[in-house]
Amino acid sequence: MVNQNHCRRYAVVGMGAIGGFYGAMLQRSGCEVHFLCRSDYSVARDRGLQVTSLGDRWPILPIYAYDDPRAMPACDVVIVALKTTQNQILAEVLPLILAPTGVVVVLQNGLGVEAAAAAIVGGDRVIGGLCFICATKTGPAQVVHSDYGAVHLGEYGPGYAARGQTPRLEAIAADLAAAGVAVKLAEDLMLARWQKLAWNVPFNGLSVVLNARTDEMIADRSVRSLAEDLMAEVRLAAAACGRELSADFCDRLLADTEVMKPYYTSMKLDFDAGRPLEHEAIVGEPWRTGCRAGANLPLMGMLYRQLDFCDRRQPRR
Amino acid sequence: MVNQNHCRRYAVVGMGAIGGFYGAMLQRSGCEVHFLCRSDYSVARDRGLQVTSLGDRWPILPIYAYDDPRAMPACDVVIVALKTTQNQILAEVLPLILAPTGVVVVLQNGLGVEAAAAAIVGGDRVIGGLCFICATKTGPAQVVHSDYGAVHLGEYGPGYAARGQTPRLEAIAADLAAAGVAVKLAEDLMLARWQKLAWNVPFNGLSVVLNARTDEMIADRSVRSLAEDLMAEVRLAAAACGRELSADFCDRLLADTEVMKPYYTSMKLDFDAGRPLEHEAIVGEPWRTGCRAGANLPLMGMLYRQLDFCDRRQPRR
Repeated sequence: MVNQNHCRRYAVVGMGAIGGFYGAMLQRSGCEVHFLCRSDYSVARDRGLQVTSLGDRWPILPIYAYDDPRAMPACDVVIVALKTTQNQILAEVLPLILAPTGVVVVLQNGLGVEAAAAAIVGGDRVIGGLCFICATKTGPAQVVHSDYGAVHLGEYGPGYAARGQTPRLEAIAADLAAAGVAVKLAEDLMLARWQKLAWNVPFNGLSVVLNARTDEMIADRSVRSLAEDLMAEVRLAAAACGRELSADFCDRLLADTEVMKPYYTSMKLDFDAGRPLEHEAIVGEPWRTGCRAGANLPLMGMLYRQLDFCDRRQPRR
Repeated sequence: MVNQNHCRRYAVVGMGAIGGFYGAMLQRSGCEVHFLCRSDYSVARDRGLQVTSLGDRWPILPIYAYDDPRAMPACDVVIVALKTTQNQILAEVLPLILAPTGVVVVLQNGLGVEAAAAAIVGGDRVIGGLCFICATKTGPAQVVHSDYGAVHLGEYGPGYAARGQTPRLEAIAADLAAAGVAVKLAEDLMLARWQKLAWNVPFNGLSVVLNARTDEMIADRSVRSLAEDLMAEVRLAAAACGRELSADFCDRLLADTEVMKPYYTSMKLDFDAGRPLEHEAIVGEPWRTGCRAGANLPLMGMLYRQLDFCDRRQPRR
């Protein structure tokens, strides 16, 4: 399925599960994609990118791989697929690879994650995206996509003012859709972020503190009740920011979790691999933002501090 | 140092660190002490009780050891030194070994722990005690006492009505004092229990959830802040029950923790040994009691539910 339209030139910053998978999807559909790697660089250059999607092992994809952003061409769309804990490299990278009329798409979890890019390229040149996917990096330039895959995209504005839809948002969504990605456009990026946080705050957070899989958490009466209370606090925080998450929406998240394939959350995988936790973006910033807006969020504050300890005392590998 | 007074006859139910240490102290001072054992029985009978106190290895103490309460004589004072998770055996044991005018001394942590004995022998025949001690059972009938050792005793009344001092309380305190134990009499047992909970709720609880020693917790800014907030909730709970813990008192607990020898709390030792956690007595009951009295205690509720999960999913040994 080759994209017949004039396709924007893409850069993918960060060759993890997210960057590798969506970058490969775009390239297979005919887009030109340039991958900025770190530890994966020599494997990506010499062998290419190996994706296994839903049990189907794709032919190895030769890719434009770089370890130096100065060697990359200017790109129309820069997809930031780093862990939020690596955002400090954006200050150097983005000015080198973003075309003058280009836009940054931040595919990261949490709240406030667009601010790093916005501070560098301007608040009007950033789109936020949320990935609903189970995918894991299983080796250098090697990604396994095991379930789901949708992306929600929304225009970013400083302070998360709702921006509605724009032609550039629709064009990028069209590229992703042509590449086979289920895309949804969010009129209000902050609402979309709170919706995802309603699940991520309790289940990512507790999975690390309690060393537990999704199925263990949802099946235990105490953890389920705690997850519900944490979810209720995310609703309060969102409401204090003027975004409504309905009770039905939250009930559906819990019901979905009951029937999910058991898995370890991304934060738990990071923890077990000795990588820094994304607890600032996923729990700390939502907690602080909700508190600043006037909500009372004691459980989120407790979870954040527990994660902060887990992160700090963890041996890095 | 032999106790010259007519000494009451003691039973010790539970040959753990607490029962072994204080029972040995009483016997060495001349009291008659009968020990009800379970797994320790044959070692205790054949070899006796081995105590090492503050680096000093005492001569092995031959003791009256029993594995069957029906073989025991009626005792004036029955010291309950079980884990609270084993209190279900009291219904069988206490009627067999408590003399008609005898009294039960419950040396257990937490809140509401006297209720089990009171339901069996009557609410007017129970004394509560709190042990401020670092002691560990290191093998069958083998105890190491490494620091502290004081006991606070107070008369119990249903609903924890303050009972002041009584002659029998003073007599038991005198036996303990003669045995070398630093004893303090509590006019108000519930206040004494809340005072101990101010430390035990945060530090016992978090030590299990975060897999941490006291020094790791107090030195980490996030855990210290969380411990302070949990302590503040214990103050609120106590206040709702009409007991005041001063801010100074809590500050002193934190300062003491900074200079303590690093150690794993009793709940953490239980967890690591695969024993049931005392989270109901130490966190659950204080939380529920405070909530019933009208206090808002979200952090205690979160900690309780985390511990409940840790307890339930732990492999028993």
